[in-house]
Amino acid sequence: MKILVFAGALRKDSWNKKFALNAEKLLRGIQGIEAEYIDLKPLEIPLYDGDIETQGIPRGVQTLSDKVRNAQALVISSPEYNASMSCVLKNTVDWLSRVKPTPLAGKPVLLLGASPGALGAVRGLWHARNPFVELKAHVFPDMMGLPKADQAFSPDGTLADAKTAEKLKTLLEKYLVFARSLQA
Amino acid sequence: MKILVFAGALRKDSWNKKFALNAEKLLRGIQGIEAEYIDLKPLEIPLYDGDIETQGIPRGVQTLSDKVRNAQALVISSPEYNASMSCVLKNTVDWLSRVKPTPLAGKPVLLLGASPGALGAVRGLWHARNPFVELKAHVFPDMMGLPKADQAFSPDGTLADAKTAEKLKTLLEKYLVFARSLQA
Amino acid sequence: MKILVFAGALRKDSWNKKFALNAEKLLRGIQGIEAEYIDLKPLEIPLYDGDIETQGIPRGVQTLSDKVRNAQALVISSPEYNASMSCVLKNTVDWLSRVKPTPLAGKPVLLLGASPGALGAVRGLWHARNPFVELKAHVFPDMMGLPKADQAFSPDGTLADAKTAEKLKTLLEKYLVFARSLQA
Amino acid sequence: MKILVFAGALRKDSWNKKFALNAEKLLRGIQGIEAEYIDLKPLEIPLYDGDIETQGIPRGVQTLSDKVRNAQALVISSPEYNASMSCVLKNTVDWLSRVKPTPLAGKPVLLLGASPGALGAVRGLWHARNPFVELKAHVFPDMMGLPKADQAFSPDGTLADAKTAEKLKTLLEKYLVFARSLQA
Repeated sequence: MKILVFAGALRKDSWNKKFALNAEKLLRGIQGIEAEYIDLKPLEIPLYDGDIETQGIPRGVQTLSDKVRNAQALVISSPEYNASMSCVLKNTVDWLSRVKPTPLAGKPVLLLGASPGALGAVRGLWHARNPFVELKAHVFPDMMGLPKADQAFSPDGTLADAKTAEKLKTLLEKYLVFARSLQA
Repeated sequence: MKILVFAGALRKDSWNKKFALNAEKLLRGIQGIEAEYIDLKPLEIPLYDGDIETQGIPRGVQTLSDKVRNAQALVISSPEYNASMSCVLKNTVDWLSRVKPTPLAGKPVLLLGASPGALGAVRGLWHARNPFVELKAHVFPDMMGLPKADQAFSPDGTLADAKTAEKLKTLLEKYLVFARSLQA
Repeated sequence: MKILVFAGALRKDSWNKKFALNAEKLLRGIQGIEAEYIDLKPLEIPLYDGDIETQGIPRGVQTLSDKVRNAQALVISSPEYNASMSCVLKNTVDWLSRVKPTPLAGKPVLLLGASPGALGAVRGLWHARNPFVELKAHVFPDMMGLPKADQAFSPDGTLADAKTAEKLKTLLEKYLVFARSLQA
Repeated sequence: MKILVFAGALRKDSWNKKFALNAEKLLRGIQGIEAEYIDLKPLEIPLYDGDIETQGIPRGVQTLSDKVRNAQALVISSPEYNASMSCVLKNTVDWLSRVKPTPLAGKPVLLLGASPGALGAVRGLWHARNPFVELKAHVFPDMMGLPKADQAFSPDGTLADAKTAEKLKTLLEKYLVFARSLQA
């Protein structure tokens, strides 16, 4: 099963990129899983504008869309901005919805989030569910927020706390049971 | 009282820009109101990226932020994308939240929406309330969706249906009572 | 596969009860499906009160909980009250969450709604998703609102419009594919 | 200015009743404020049922409705049940919406919440905003969650932590500025 992993943030040192990369690494260690991480930044997806769309789906959107279509499941780590989902994730989903047929339909999606605050971006994830549901994706009920993300990673980017890494691994395994059942 | 009006969309022929402009024109006709419409497109606000922010608040964000701070009330017309608020509006609000102190705190906000569908973008407006509330803006309870927006405007951009224009005018007047009481 | 069907309303002539009963009848016509409709009214589930809970889970809650646990999938038709889910559905879910382990965990859930208005209760269904998700149920992305419910039923209670009945049947069949894959 | 205070819970020893009573006591200490606390339990408001409504608005609903209508502002403390508002609060609001004209229209509302958990019921409060907004109440943007509510009160029911009491007082004062401006 191919799983595409990305973060709903652009910043080079984004905690959500790090959290997504930890998820990708854990997934790679599971038999039968082919995990791929993609960084949205080099895709240079513009802010959605119908006038841009008239000239064709931007190359970065097409690249991401192809990878989503090619995958059997998605794992996304996204920050919370202003008590809601990040504008970067919303922009990404809004563009993906313009590719026909939308590559998100029927895909299982696991939402993660990292935040320097105490709540770990979970409020934002609740809002992030809705556009995926509207596009007929199957968003996994469990989500995982990583609080105090500014202190959560070792210099090499791995999760510093073994329990947190274990929690993420357990969640990924539960999610895979779900994703595999949908694939069958 | 100064009121800033804008649309949460970039497309040149955006129905929400037209709807916002109708609101601005109606506001200009009311005594004591100084209404200004601003088009987000020429502001060229980039998709939020913490690395861009490190180099300073983008000029377009600063321009908008100054206008928001200078206004006593906001009227925003925003499309619904994928059952939620538009990525353009979310990006705009997320950038405004990075200007300190945020210019949105304490401001009354009226949300409008136009859509070619039957529901008139109202689902998206419900989600759009949340980031404004988080930033301590006072979002007016009444909202107005304009359904079938593709048929709603005359060639000169005014609302073709007199009843719809009247409904918008009545809403604006109710909103002004609220906005003025907060100003006092 | 056993499917439990109920409505999030108590009124004897509730449109949502009728809509739920139409779903149940359609399900009964599908091979391998054992559908059961349950009316919440005779269960006399009280409004949630921790002091009542201290004396034991009410009999009606236990009855419903056993039926939910015994079913492999749920179909629920619920009205929209004040732009959100019905208090009756919320009360039902809140009580079910007090039975340990909660019978909703892992269950596929299809949400329907009927309303005399033009939107067919769909706004309320979006909010109704959240408590089910919190309890780890798998809420199907597709939902169906029945607008103008006061005119939608024949005197014998069946859907008057053949197209609407067909739409419901198609949705149920799509949902069963999902529910069966989770069961496997 | 008359302020009505109540909790969205029935349990005798409810933390939200205690939190509401602390708010009421603080309000009583402010000049020009007449605060009244009402306990929902003795009102015996039934779970909403259109068949009950046909026989007339229940006495407890009418009592509460009169008090809401008679007040210029509301302060409500409500628990979070299953990541959403409490069924008790939803039931109360749904009944109030059946009294015509609804007593909630135009009223300022402050939402508080107490919870034994770490997040203090705030997720539930975000959902609780919506029905009030739909009924045209002005829900104050700031909300206050009281985490670890099981350890938050002295035996006499007052907030044990002086900082928490001060935080509540500051919020009430900010809210009163808002409520008074709407009254003017």
